[in-house]
Amino acid sequence: MTSPSSDDPIDRDLLATVGQVPIDRIPVQDVAPAVDGGDRPTKSVVGELFTVSATVFREGHDAVNATVVLTDPDGAEHPVGMRCLNEGLNHWATPVFADREGRWSYRVEGWSDPYSTWRHNAQIKVEADVDVELMLEEGARLLERARDEVERSDDDTQHLSDSIAALRDDSRPKEARLAAGAGRATADVLTRDPLRDMVSPSREYVWWVERQRALNGAWYEIFPRSEGAEQDPKTGLWTSGTFATAADRLPAIAHMGFDVVYLTPVHPIGETNRKGPNNSLEAGEHDPGSPYAIGSADGGQDAIHPDLGDFDDFDAFVDRAREEGLEVALDIALSASPDHPWVEQYPELFTTQADGTIAYAENPPKKYQDIYPLNFDNDPKLAYSEMRRVMQVWLDHGIRIFRVDNPHTKPVEFWQWLIADIGQDYPDVIWLAEAFTKPAMMHTLAKVGFQQSYTYYAWRNTAADLREYLTELSGDAAAYMRPSFWPTTHDILTPYMQYGGPTAFKLRAALAATLVPTYGIYAGYEHCEHVARPGAEEQIDNEKYEYKNRRWDLDAGHGGTGEAQGRPNLGPYLKLLNEARKNHPCLHWLRNITFHSADDENVLVYSKTGGGAHDGSDTDTVIAVVNLDPHSMRETMVNLAMPALGLDWHDGFVAHDLITGEQWNWGSRNYVRLGVGGEPAHLIHVRRF
Amino acid sequence: MTSPSSDDPIDRDLLATVGQVPIDRIPVQDVAPAVDGGDRPTKSVVGELFTVSATVFREGHDAVNATVVLTDPDGAEHPVGMRCLNEGLNHWATPVFADREGRWSYRVEGWSDPYSTWRHNAQIKVEADVDVELMLEEGARLLERARDEVERSDDDTQHLSDSIAALRDDSRPKEARLAAGAGRATADVLTRDPLRDMVSPSREYVWWVERQRALNGAWYEIFPRSEGAEQDPKTGLWTSGTFATAADRLPAIAHMGFDVVYLTPVHPIGETNRKGPNNSLEAGEHDPGSPYAIGSADGGQDAIHPDLGDFDDFDAFVDRAREEGLEVALDIALSASPDHPWVEQYPELFTTQADGTIAYAENPPKKYQDIYPLNFDNDPKLAYSEMRRVMQVWLDHGIRIFRVDNPHTKPVEFWQWLIADIGQDYPDVIWLAEAFTKPAMMHTLAKVGFQQSYTYYAWRNTAADLREYLTELSGDAAAYMRPSFWPTTHDILTPYMQYGGPTAFKLRAALAATLVPTYGIYAGYEHCEHVARPGAEEQIDNEKYEYKNRRWDLDAGHGGTGEAQGRPNLGPYLKLLNEARKNHPCLHWLRNITFHSADDENVLVYSKTGGGAHDGSDTDTVIAVVNLDPHSMRETMVNLAMPALGLDWHDGFVAHDLITGEQWNWGSRNYVRLGVGGEPAHLIHVRRF
Repeated sequence: MTSPSSDDPIDRDLLATVGQVPIDRIPVQDVAPAVDGGDRPTKSVVGELFTVSATVFREGHDAVNATVVLTDPDGAEHPVGMRCLNEGLNHWATPVFADREGRWSYRVEGWSDPYSTWRHNAQIKVEADVDVELMLEEGARLLERARDEVERSDDDTQHLSDSIAALRDDSRPKEARLAAGAGRATADVLTRDPLRDMVSPSREYVWWVERQRALNGAWYEIFPRSEGAEQDPKTGLWTSGTFATAADRLPAIAHMGFDVVYLTPVHPIGETNRKGPNNSLEAGEHDPGSPYAIGSADGGQDAIHPDLGDFDDFDAFVDRAREEGLEVALDIALSASPDHPWVEQYPELFTTQADGTIAYAENPPKKYQDIYPLNFDNDPKLAYSEMRRVMQVWLDHGIRIFRVDNPHTKPVEFWQWLIADIGQDYPDVIWLAEAFTKPAMMHTLAKVGFQQSYTYYAWRNTAADLREYLTELSGDAAAYMRPSFWPTTHDILTPYMQYGGPTAFKLRAALAATLVPTYGIYAGYEHCEHVARPGAEEQIDNEKYEYKNRRWDLDAGHGGTGEAQGRPNLGPYLKLLNEARKNHPCLHWLRNITFHSADDENVLVYSKTGGGAHDGSDTDTVIAVVNLDPHSMRETMVNLAMPALGLDWHDGFVAHDLITGEQWNWGSRNYVRLGVGGEPAHLIHVRRF
Repeated sequence: MTSPSSDDPIDRDLLATVGQVPIDRIPVQDVAPAVDGGDRPTKSVVGELFTVSATVFREGHDAVNATVVLTDPDGAEHPVGMRCLNEGLNHWATPVFADREGRWSYRVEGWSDPYSTWRHNAQIKVEADVDVELMLEEGARLLERARDEVERSDDDTQHLSDSIAALRDDSRPKEARLAAGAGRATADVLTRDPLRDMVSPSREYVWWVERQRALNGAWYEIFPRSEGAEQDPKTGLWTSGTFATAADRLPAIAHMGFDVVYLTPVHPIGETNRKGPNNSLEAGEHDPGSPYAIGSADGGQDAIHPDLGDFDDFDAFVDRAREEGLEVALDIALSASPDHPWVEQYPELFTTQADGTIAYAENPPKKYQDIYPLNFDNDPKLAYSEMRRVMQVWLDHGIRIFRVDNPHTKPVEFWQWLIADIGQDYPDVIWLAEAFTKPAMMHTLAKVGFQQSYTYYAWRNTAADLREYLTELSGDAAAYMRPSFWPTTHDILTPYMQYGGPTAFKLRAALAATLVPTYGIYAGYEHCEHVARPGAEEQIDNEKYEYKNRRWDLDAGHGGTGEAQGRPNLGPYLKLLNEARKNHPCLHWLRNITFHSADDENVLVYSKTGGGAHDGSDTDTVIAVVNLDPHSMRETMVNLAMPALGLDWHDGFVAHDLITGEQWNWGSRNYVRLGVGGEPAHLIHVRRF
């Protein structure tokens, strides 16, 4: 393909010897997205717009051009013309999107553009009366090639034949003859179906298009055993919740507008070295243990904790969720309690020490004696097939979203294989990586297949930090990593949330729900549960080790009445956020964020623009203005980059606040007053005149 | 190699299908240098130090480590341990260099480091009295593996045997037993020859090591026909210089300390449409024509202009240069005058238009009627083989450096092939690309093989511009592109040089000579020839179209006496610069530049540090302080980043100015006075106490 003729003078073996991949006849370089240089696929979801770009140039002065060719899952090719956005840098780009799921690919083709070359030269030379007849005849011959060599509509073919005749008609003035070949109408014909010489394709970049939930969704996390758990007021003893009682919570979650209900592990829990409240080393007789210490005589990751019910109960829960419009996400933790059946059956899955004992999880000198970490290297084939087997159990019960606990403690190559292996039969599966670790691991897990990633969001609290982080996440990284923003989890309660009060809980939810398309809330968030275990960035009385009855939010129906008991209740606020997310397609995407400024650096301003059809028919714009200081009311001026909103600098618009329903007339500079005592955030729908 | 066991559970076909190259067991990513992701070779010259880096990490808490393995031209492998420079980013790096020319390669191996894991854990746990016997026995078993599985010296093997015995000797206190396994001496043995598990190699990166002249040299450009040309004072007619008369100029060039004498094209010049003085369309009867309009009945690129002599004269010139310590670089211009033999013999090498004529070079509406550009696409095989043939002529006459005129007007793939093809038989050939064009083309020509590149230096005149440009050139780009800095050429005379006077000529030479290892001067620079053709960034009376007699510099021997005739003479200054370049090994390298600051932004401050042996034995440091304003004397304070000089912030040193010979006591902040009326630049050798 890179050879200028079939009589190729280039010795490819020689080039390989000297370490040179043959350069294209028209060099095409720096194709983006190219995840790990193309070693890993680019990702998008259906309808997600992103830019394909490349550096394309050629020798000499002749015109060069570029096309991105999208290949759909059936192998059909869809060429999309690129535009040169920077002549000096030879930077070509175009937005693209896929209209359905599956394995797509794309390549960039650089090509010599003989029509543009001729048009440029002919316009100058005919005007200057230089080589007039020659230039017109060259144009006629070029249009003959364009007509005869390229498939095009009958109308366009006729147009070219007419142009050819006109170019050669020496009874007409030269200007008219030139216009027949170089005028707008003919140029449009050649833009639609160009005559392309020296077509030089880049490599083919694999591009996986996944369902929209892989990018966009509102998650709600519960410990199913807590939902409906009852404490006996006399004995203080608890009765575990069940799938059946947990299912009763689903309408409230659905009513708040969530899309996904995520369950912490549902498997049998080990007894040996079971942890008690607040991670204490000794559990009391009635302490339920951590659902992450998986495995007992009742089974392991392939079984259900008897307290919760059986597989029929599980199926009923999943069905009930589906009826409520909720998809169930299951927590997958690949480790074992000392009581896990694997310990007897497959000791190769663990690390045996010099003294013959199995190694606990530890971070010396600390030991986590309720957990044996798995060893994937003793017998990889066994480890892989056994993990694959337990995953199949949940696939068979209809689960298609998995939240993976600590994936960064298992070999990356295991995940690459597991996700690919399951993906071939279940292309709709979504994996969320809980890799709260260093960036290299977090990004690599995304590159090898995880559809979603927990992020550092909980620790990004200033405007500068959020702008920098979102710029990273919505930029190159968006081609492979989809962020999920959680203000808190059952393991994370930052000082900002401990001390920020209900205002912090509101604004961090508003940010999470609108900065990125996927965010999540851990049960109890509505009530601003904010007391930490002393010295830790974690809740006191972590639900991992005990039951929590939060049914106070049910007593007045959907949305709860926390206030009635003196507790805050953000249920209605979360419902507003989720409604805005559903109603505004611009909030469905990640890569469409623009930051604006406020005079007060504590106020973060950003907007999202774009619809779903990408044809300009449904442009939707939402502006978020958030006072990040949970402790004070702030007044400031907000400065909008109007062109990013599709407006001119002098335009006005009606700012409709989706939180309060208020409306104002806004322009490029606007007053806001936000914070404690009022609303911490505006969520403004731009209503154009 | 990436599989954890021979019983590989990973289905590589499946991964290929989903677009995933298998990730390593220990992920190794972002290896640098990796030119075009490894599609093109990394370059260095013999002895040139550069950093190989990678992101290397693993799952869980066990220790990871990394090695770069250098493979020399004979296939022998040289492992070099890497260091983790940033734990948070998992960034590993080490400096490397090659000690001889040829095709090297390198790869980065990530590996699990069981000894470091054990050492870390054992030190904590034994101290805390946790699992003491277990940890010591685990250590003993690990050292047994280290002793038995890894080749090492007899001394080290004995040390390990002793350590193993000590670890198991329960008559000794636990601290002594631990120290035997985890102490510095044993750690050093394991650092020298580590026990490496799960070794995960990156791809192999091809690395070409070329001769030092490819990076480092002082060039002097002449039109050979001018050197010794005589104008008859009565008729005004010229007699051309010859190779014989030009050879008489060589001692002066050598005396100034130059390494390379570069000749503009030496071939027969066409008569048809020959250009006259100042690019006029009509040449006079006696005008010599542009040496870039190549080809007449006397031959083309394979022939010598009869006025200059014959091949014997050429050989004699090359021999004479060699005697003077100068290497000859030849200018290669691949285009043809209308009189070129190719026009008759190989019309396929040109573009024939609709009217049957051959297309001139043009930039419409301008035509360059003395030049037919070559067409490489009509018959690539002919074009390639004919170009290869004419190159062989000069290879056979001992030329090993080619300055290529306008390579960016020929297909990039042609250069990739030509340079590789000639390189296999003549690995010492150096190609300099004269691609004064956009960055993409300039960089790509370097990537496909050109050893050197002209640059934008002539247009980088402010301190901010120079810092930014050098940061680019000495950074990632240094792995493939070697800059050549020219303050002027026969085609370039910027306004800065037109109006800056002799001070500009001095300081721009000093910058060029010390910012990068290769720089060049066009004859006449010593005399500050600075008059431009009106409206152009080019000399008046361009030497391309006429003779220039510059023998005025000979009348007082080497170095010239321009001053005697009222002309400036920078010969002695250039000699000083070239002597500094020869005497100071730190000036031989590109990647070792550090910028410092001055209170006056017009004063540029930078240093280079490093020797040739890279063992610390020959550290050499030169600081350049240059007032970039050619019109005024400036006094300012210079602020040195002392650690970059290998000094502490409070250290002092003797600053020895290589220009004036003066000496001062300097520290981190120093007074300078530089500019017109004095010296514009200090070139300071750091003499350490």
